[in-house]
Order: sequence, then structure tokens, then C-alpha cells
Amino acid sequence: MSHSYKDLMATTAFSVLEQLPKIDDMSALLTGERVKGAQVSMAAGLTYNYAAKPVDGAHLGALQQVADEMELVAQYRSLLGGAEMNGGEKRKVLHHLTRGQLGATVNFNGRDLRHFYLEQQQRVAQFCQRVHSGEVRGASGKLFQHVCQVGIGGSDLGPRALYLALTGYANSRGLQRMRASFISNVDPDDAEQVLSSCDLETTLFILVSKSGTTQETLTNVALVRRALVQQGLDVAKHLVAVTSATSPLADNDEYLESFFIDDFVGGRYSATSAVGATVLSLTFGPTIFNEIIAGAHAQDRLALEADIHKNASLLDALLGVYERNCLGYAATAILPYSQALSRFPAHLQQLDMESNGKRVNRRGDVIDYATGPLVFGEPGTNGQHSFYQLLHQGSDIVPLQFIGFKHAQGSLDIDIDGSSSQEKLNANLVAQIVAFATGQGNEDPNKVFLGQRPASLIYGSVLTPQVLGALLAHFENKVMFQGFLWNINSFDQEGVQLGKLLTKQVLSKKINNEVLREYAQLMDV
Amino acid sequence: MSHSYKDLMATTAFSVLEQLPKIDDMSALLTGERVKGAQVSMAAGLTYNYAAKPVDGAHLGALQQVADEMELVAQYRSLLGGAEMNGGEKRKVLHHLTRGQLGATVNFNGRDLRHFYLEQQQRVAQFCQRVHSGEVRGASGKLFQHVCQVGIGGSDLGPRALYLALTGYANSRGLQRMRASFISNVDPDDAEQVLSSCDLETTLFILVSKSGTTQETLTNVALVRRALVQQGLDVAKHLVAVTSATSPLADNDEYLESFFIDDFVGGRYSATSAVGATVLSLTFGPTIFNEIIAGAHAQDRLALEADIHKNASLLDALLGVYERNCLGYAATAILPYSQALSRFPAHLQQLDMESNGKRVNRRGDVIDYATGPLVFGEPGTNGQHSFYQLLHQGSDIVPLQFIGFKHAQGSLDIDIDGSSSQEKLNANLVAQIVAFATGQGNEDPNKVFLGQRPASLIYGSVLTPQVLGALLAHFENKVMFQGFLWNINSFDQEGVQLGKLLTKQVLSKKINNEVLREYAQLMDV
Repeated sequence: MSHSYKDLMATTAFSVLEQLPKIDDMSALLTGERVKGAQVSMAAGLTYNYAAKPVDGAHLGALQQVADEMELVAQYRSLLGGAEMNGGEKRKVLHHLTRGQLGATVNFNGRDLRHFYLEQQQRVAQFCQRVHSGEVRGASGKLFQHVCQVGIGGSDLGPRALYLALTGYANSRGLQRMRASFISNVDPDDAEQVLSSCDLETTLFILVSKSGTTQETLTNVALVRRALVQQGLDVAKHLVAVTSATSPLADNDEYLESFFIDDFVGGRYSATSAVGATVLSLTFGPTIFNEIIAGAHAQDRLALEADIHKNASLLDALLGVYERNCLGYAATAILPYSQALSRFPAHLQQLDMESNGKRVNRRGDVIDYATGPLVFGEPGTNGQHSFYQLLHQGSDIVPLQFIGFKHAQGSLDIDIDGSSSQEKLNANLVAQIVAFATGQGNEDPNKVFLGQRPASLIYGSVLTPQVLGALLAHFENKVMFQGFLWNINSFDQEGVQLGKLLTKQVLSKKINNEVLREYAQLMDV
Repeated sequence: MSHSYKDLMATTAFSVLEQLPKIDDMSALLTGERVKGAQVSMAAGLTYNYAAKPVDGAHLGALQQVADEMELVAQYRSLLGGAEMNGGEKRKVLHHLTRGQLGATVNFNGRDLRHFYLEQQQRVAQFCQRVHSGEVRGASGKLFQHVCQVGIGGSDLGPRALYLALTGYANSRGLQRMRASFISNVDPDDAEQVLSSCDLETTLFILVSKSGTTQETLTNVALVRRALVQQGLDVAKHLVAVTSATSPLADNDEYLESFFIDDFVGGRYSATSAVGATVLSLTFGPTIFNEIIAGAHAQDRLALEADIHKNASLLDALLGVYERNCLGYAATAILPYSQALSRFPAHLQQLDMESNGKRVNRRGDVIDYATGPLVFGEPGTNGQHSFYQLLHQGSDIVPLQFIGFKHAQGSLDIDIDGSSSQEKLNANLVAQIVAFATGQGNEDPNKVFLGQRPASLIYGSVLTPQVLGALLAHFENKVMFQGFLWNINSFDQEGVQLGKLLTKQVLSKKINNEVLREYAQLMDV
């Protein structure tokens, strides 16, 4: 890499930040005025509120200095412009380009890559039109009513989270075209459960593997093939592939159609590429998919702002680094008060932990400061009845990321005891933020709440496709900025290789390690 | 409480343990012999393997001393005998008694409580027989084919995890009697999604609330009622209640039937009481539910062993405390290599974090040592493609709890490249344990794996109902022993109260807190 980026700890601004007094009484900090003022506008009508974060003006000033000194937005611009920000793999990082053009044209091998991504999106849209109109049908002549995506990791978590997030929205507006299900795990019980609930004659399968060599996915597609053949159905009429143009799966007669991604869109960043486009356009129609894209693109544009008071993703990233590296908090909880976002925390878990769970900087030096936190979460109010006890009264402080919407997606609601379900949901949401931040004293030590648990809140009117796109892009960009801050490569995943290598040894019965051999014997493998 | 229990840090044995040298090279410790030897038999043919835990004979000796000095098994015996081990709430803790009698008879108000739990289980079984035979039918005369449980927290997570865990087992053996779905969140979009996929005429709803006052559940039941009424169906013919005998829901004409629990079974420990019995007996039949119970009871019995080499739950608890309080690890990942256990980590998250996320001991003193860890997880191999990067190469060490089975539940499998899906699954499992423990060097720092990531493995032949029961009881008992070790009350949940209180203020529009008022305004509530 020609440009040598600074480590966080080597910056002047970070040492200033570190030396500022910590906020040891959030009750004093958190006023009504602050709740109204500590906000940043996001795309699609969303707002990022950081009132319950343990920072005052001095901290914010220092965080701005960190952002400036580390040239975080300039690094983002380089990335947009096609610099090889995935240094280890010597690759560009272009998932933003799947949503629209924000910098200069990016060419590769003489090809305008924005054109390439757009072309794939349009090919998907045309294919959907043919499926929805009944021009393309199952082998027995029936209309396709069901899509089943076979993929794992980034080819599963993001698309699945987005699908679940919009099912209620689309259903209640009569916009849902097809149902979707997902097979991911190599455990054959996963495929069995899903296939047993599918009517194969009316099911279109999407095989998603960028490399075309993912063990789990190829194995599961073999199970799908066998099931189709057993029912006398022509496999090639029930299967489309999403893969890279150079993979063994590309332009293969065994598929109805192939849609392409390239090496510049990482799996965990691929929800807005053909990986997400295919299943989401089939289920909800290309218009809704375009709205997701538009929301993400608008949020990507806001991430260009150098001022942290105008750039929620940048500010969120900086606050997270302050909590991780100055306050020593090891985890972050994602708490959407929206059942539609039930698997969004699982997607963010991959996005964040696979991107920033690293211990070597971009120069190849081992670093001695903490990087990516542990990320987990469940929707509220369910989480309240599960792990919130520890968040309130446990030994460690876990910063909290709340997400909420004023209105439900659907129209099923009911007034009980003077309030609707949606009001109850949001009353719980705001009550929790305040309880976590300010706590409560009591004579009985068991009933004492120390407070001092920081939270931010992203809120909007209703979870529409645009809002969902903006939310997705916000977290992608937050994770990107944090990677820049820690000076790590957020776009590779060397940490998954050793397991693959040892798995191959076991399966090929060429184990050169006595310990592995004994473990394999325990499991009869 | 008459008996004054010691704090962990006040024991002689813990100071001995703390001063033992740490294992700083797991590669040297972990031999083939150790993999075969470091095992404890569990119930239902399961085995607990702790070979990849950073302890040698000296540590194990000291852990045994800790167990003895703190009288952990004696405390368990007291609990079984009906002592008020839920001190804050002055209650007995009797979930073990829902599985069988292990100590002397436990009476309350002149009543033998084993008899009470068994009676409820039998009432559930008789009711199921009437539903399955068609004697009890929906209001329009149709057979019930679908159960929908409405509950939250312990009335949802455990039963849901167990239902999902056995669906494949029951399906592939032709034993599934009814399908189940679950409504938990007060978000009206949750109920809308579930209800829109139900045929109400053939759906039996189970309302589960111990207190009979759970806001979320009562609100959701109101939505269910309205939906039934809108379809002209008699609500009382479609609704059963599981509640305490003293709750407003008990023996109410508005329900087809009520089944009872009492105050001595906490929500997160209620899966083997009527809370789990009703939905699991309806879906899989009372025989399968009895097998779950039998597995749990057998594991409860093993937890009476004073010798850590014969008591996996005790040893697991002690190893966890060693990792938490001597090695400083803040989290534990639950990694079942079984898609059927997809929501088992979510159940354990509640079980563990709600039980042991406390900072006050049983004498009411604030304690200064770490208690319950953060618990999270997803099934393998899915997790490998998500957060394992951080587990392998991130800044913090997270101990890992693997779970695996030699055989799949179903029969759908396929050989590809010389191995079945199940073999691939388990090859991945064992490869990961070894990769995490021993790591790998490399010239490129990005490809270095430090290893030293501890793991235990619980394994068995196949995930049957008995195995599932044993697994459930193992973790319940582990959490209980850890609570004894930290000298905290694992059976209350004071940490959920403040949020409830503030929620009420918001909903009643009687907010006496300017900060809360402003947050409420942001959300239009």
C-alpha cells in the first residue's frame, strides 16, 4: 500500500481524548435539552440520537480531531474512488458502488464497474418480471410462488435479515410477490426442514456462492438437486446462480440464469449486490429493492460529511472507539424495538465481528489496543425478558444501540388500558434508555441500579425499504470508519482459513495431528 | 436466610487456585491422550469433554477444593429439599421437582409439591389425548392442527428452543402431531405475522403467564381474541391458559382449560413445567415430553455427585468461574453444531444472564468480583461464516462451548467428494476446536492464529428428546452452581423492575422526569 495510515494510538488527537476527564455521572449530563439536541439527521428520515452517550463538548471536539487527523472521510473517498483498501487481498472495496456513484468512475480491466453492478441489478429486475408474469415457470408448468436461497454467511445473513425486515411491510400493503426461505447450514437437518415445507414444483432456488466453491452451499445444492430429480422435475428450470463471472458456476447450462458479483464486494457487504437483489426483487418486486438501494445510497452520501455533527456513521464509529479504547467496554448490544428486525442483529454481528475482529494493522504490525467488540442482540421487548438483567445489574458495562420506529409496519394493533401495542413497545424503549443511563438508588442493594450504561438511539417513522437501506448503510459505514480508526483491514477474513484447512484434513483422512485425530474419533468422523 | 454462605473470594481454596501458574501454552497441554481422558459422562449417553480447557491436574484439584469448601453439592441438596434458595423473594426453587423426586418430600401448605407438578403434567397429557383424538375441536368443529403459544421470556424462549430442537426428530419419525408457532413481542407486527400464517379455525392458542399480568402477553392475547371474534369463532374454545393457581387467569370460563405452575419455578427454569409441557405434549405427544423429562431428571441426579470427575455440570461451572475470575474472560459463546439447536443459545442467554447478571451477594453486600458472563451464540457451521473471525483473531479471548452429535436427526443426507453432510458438519466442529486451542504460526502476521482459545465439547449420538432434556438440565445446573460460587441469588431478577416502572410512567402520561419525557416525545409516545 503506498499510503501509510496512522495507528489510532499514534495520533495526537487520541492522546488528548484519552486524557479528558471521564463522565462519571450520566444523570448530571443527561438533561431534557440534551435529549433534543444531541442528534444527527440520517437518510430516509432517520435520526441518530446520542444523548445517553458519556461524552460532553470536549470529548466531541477531541473525537472530531481524531477524525480529521486520521483523515477518515478522505480514506472513505479513496475507497469510493477504487483504491485497494482491502490491502491484504489487493482489492478494491466497492459495495457502495452497488448503490450508486459517489466518486469518480471506477474502472477495472477497461470496464466501468458502476455499469457492471447496475447491469446485474437490471438483469435481475428483468428476470423477476418474467417470473412474476408467468413467462418463466417451474418444470411442470406451474407458477413460481416460493424462492429458496441456498447460501451461507454473507450470502445468507444479510439477505435473510432484509427479507424478514420487509415481510410485514410488503404483506400488509399487498406487495409481497413470493415467499422466501433459506438453507445455510451444512447440517443436513437444515435442508430437510426447509425442503419438507416447500412445494418443489412452485419453488425457485437461488444458489449463492461468490467463489462457486463454498462447501456448505454446494452440498446443500446437491440435496436440492436430488429432491427435484426425485420429483421428476428438471433441475435447470428451478435453479438460478449468483456468483462471480469467473466461478465454475457462471453461465452454466445447469441454471436458468446466472447473476454476477465480483471480488470487490465482500460477502458481508453484498446485500445490495446481486446477492440480495435476486431474492429481494423476486419476493417484493424490483421497485422495493430499488427503494432499499436508494436509502442506502443516501446514507452513503451523508457519510462523506467531515463534520461529526452531520455524519451519524462517523460519529457512531468514534463513540464506539471511545467506549472500547478509553472506557474499556468489550461488547455492544443491538436492540431493535421492531420484531421485523429480528435477525438484523445477527447480520450486524457478522458485519462487525468479521470485519474488525483483527489484531494486525494495515502495515502488518501486531497492535496492542483493543479492536472490534463482541456484538449481539435480540429485539425488544423480548430481550427485556431475557438478558437485560445482566445489562442493568451485571458486573460489566455493555453499551447499547437501540433502534425504534414510531409506527408499526402493519395495521394490526389494539388499545388496552389506554395504549396501543406500538405505544407500549415504544414506552418500553424509552424507559429502558433512561433506566440504563441514570439508574436508581434504593435501600435494598438488590434493587439498586447504578446506571451509567451508555445508549444511542436510531429512530424513524416506520420501517420502510428506504429506511432499511439507510440503516444497513449506516452500520456498514460505521464499521468501515472503525476499521480506519483501528488501522486494520476490515475487508479480509484470514481468521476463517485455519478451520477450513483442518476440516479438509479430517475429511480427506489425512490428519497429521494426533489431537485432531482423537477429536475426530470422538465424533466418528 | 439462616445459613450464611461464603463468598468465592473468601475461600481458602480459591486463593490456592488463583496462585497456581496459568497454562500459557495449550499446544503443550493438549495431547491425544488428554482428548480421550478429559471427559465426564453425562445422562442420555452424552459426554462432557474438557480437554481444550486451560487446566491441569493442579487446577482441577483446586477446583475440587473450591467445590468442597463452598459446599456446592450440599447447597444443591438444600435446594432440592425445599430450602428458600431464592432468598430475596423468600421462595423455594423447585424446577428439578418438575422432573422427579431427588430428595425428601417437599411440602407447602400441607401439599406434596411433587404430586402437584406431576398432576399438572398428567392433566396436560389427558388434554392432549382429547385434542389428538378429536374429542376437543375448534369452534367450527374442525380438528386442531396447529398450536400457537403466546408468552414472553421464560414462557417463550425455552419452549420455543425445545420445540425447534425436536421438530426434525419428530417429523422424520412420523411423530409430529401438530405444528407450533409463537407470539412473544409486544410489537404488533409480531402477532400480525404469526396470525396471518395461521388457519384460526384449526389453531389452539396457549396463553402463558405465571403472574397473569404480563403486559406483552395480555396485549397479544387481546389481538388473538379479536382475530378469533372477527372470524366468528368462540374464543373460549380456542384458548388454554398456563398460569399460577392464584392468577386472574386461573380457572376462568374464558379458557378451555387452565394448567398450573407455582412460584417455585422461575420463568427461565419453567420449560419442564406446564409451561413447556403443554406446547410440547400437544405438538409431539406426551411420550416425547416424558422422554425430555426423563433425560433432565437423570442429569439432575448426576449433579448430586461431589466428585467433579463424575459431575459435568459442577465441573463446567467451576471451569467457567476459573475463566471468568482468574483469567478475566468476559463472555462465553454457545456453538451447537446442530441446526435443530438454532435457538438453544438464545434460551441459554436468558438462563445464564438473567440468573447470574448480579452484583450483590446473598447477604446483601455489593461484591467486587465478576459474576455471570455475556452469553451468545449461533449454530455451526453458520457461525464460522459470521463471527468466528473475531473469536480466532480478535483482541479478546472468548471461551467456547461446542455441542455436537454423531448423527443427524433426519435421513436426508448426501455424499459429496467422499463425505456426507453430517461428516462435513462434524469435521468442521473438531477442526474448529483444535484451531482455537492450538492456533498456527505464519510469516505473514495476518495469517497467524495465536490459539489459546479454550473450548469444551458436549457430544452424543443423536439429538433425541432424552438427550435434549439432559442438555437442558446440564446448563440449568451449571448456572445454579455458578450462582452458588459467586454467592448470588440466581433465582430473582430485580434488574427488570426499573424499566417496568418507567414504562408505566410513560403509558400513564405521568412522567416525573424531564429526560424521560423528551425521549417519549421523540417516539411520539
